[in-house]
Amino acid sequence: MVVKVYGQSFASAKRVIMCLIEKEIEYEVVDVDLLKGEHKSPQYPFGVVPVIEDGDYKLYESRAIIRYYAEKYRSQGPELLGKTIEERGLIEQWLEVEAHNFQPPLYELVSQLLFGPKLGIPTDPKSVQENEEKLAKVLDVYEERLSTAKYLAGDAFSLADLSHIPFGNFLVSTLKKEYLIRDRENVSRWWDEISSRPSWKKVLELYPPAI
Amino acid sequence: MVVKVYGQSFASAKRVIMCLIEKEIEYEVVDVDLLKGEHKSPQYPFGVVPVIEDGDYKLYESRAIIRYYAEKYRSQGPELLGKTIEERGLIEQWLEVEAHNFQPPLYELVSQLLFGPKLGIPTDPKSVQENEEKLAKVLDVYEERLSTAKYLAGDAFSLADLSHIPFGNFLVSTLKKEYLIRDRENVSRWWDEISSRPSWKKVLELYPPAI
Repeated sequence: MVVKVYGQSFASAKRVIMCLIEKEIEYEVVDVDLLKGEHKSPQYPFGVVPVIEDGDYKLYESRAIIRYYAEKYRSQGPELLGKTIEERGLIEQWLEVEAHNFQPPLYELVSQLLFGPKLGIPTDPKSVQENEEKLAKVLDVYEERLSTAKYLAGDAFSLADLSHIPFGNFLVSTLKKEYLIRDRENVSRWWDEISSRPSWKKVLELYPPAI
Repeated sequence: MVVKVYGQSFASAKRVIMCLIEKEIEYEVVDVDLLKGEHKSPQYPFGVVPVIEDGDYKLYESRAIIRYYAEKYRSQGPELLGKTIEERGLIEQWLEVEAHNFQPPLYELVSQLLFGPKLGIPTDPKSVQENEEKLAKVLDVYEERLSTAKYLAGDAFSLADLSHIPFGNFLVSTLKKEYLIRDRENVSRWWDEISSRPSWKKVLELYPPAI
């Protein structure tokens, strides 16, 4: 059964696609035009993409979807959930940190500086400054963590790292805030390591960012 | 080894304690005084509780901690992570919904109406109204889901339900917004079901809310 992924242009859908490529799972993408309101249907209960369909099985929330496939195909492709329950615990911790500390200020920067102008909404410089400062502080904690660990959850690349890539990519591309990464030696090394994985290069090649 | 839980007065720590009680795991609590800034130490990288210590193993982020213990003690107490990978997928989906859709507007209401006044910060009525409306819309989706499923992820109580209880409790207690639950037949039935579990009654009895 080929997995259908809805909404491939969007960063959180790229989280899912990168995971499917890492795990060597066959998939196809289905375009969703958010500007046309195509996500405002019962299929998207909270109006968000991605959604996956895998036969009769449907799932939304990108971080739930990547956990599902990493678990279902544990022995296929790299192990992304850790070798022990303790390793998985740390992966879960850093997945939560990504969702609650890394993504929110970065999402606000993307909204203010990229989506807003496209939709004719003026940028709020105070929000930009506050969120840039917030993100810098979060990355200071990452810098310390990555001074003693190769990847966020330990020695191996995992879902915790993968989950950072699609939004992190805005920093080095259209957001032009790469300094937040480059000013931090270990974050910089980690970013180069995770973003040069063939799976991510393929995602960028196949599905250029929406903005 | 007895698990140490730091910060038991706070709602997110109660998520962890309820899970430990459900899974019949021995624990002890360590008080953390946030008003005295005790959480601003290297032990709390993002300045948040709860943190757990289990011998040499440390973990933060409540939803990572509950996943860890539900996995480590799968066969002890009720199964909280589903019987199949597909069931776990849905549990993960609803855990994400709780974290990204349910908790944020509710947290804002708690900040505006409970913590703010205690700290002498005036309430912003616009924010209260907006977040109350946001939460109502989220609960409309829950109402529909719970019209065809006993619990959020299906037939059995799981981490997805458990994760809602400590913050949900503010609605029926000090926040006085119980109508958001009672106006929705299936949400109301679900709330009564999950909040009457002995584990939650014990949490309330042992660790009254901070506010």
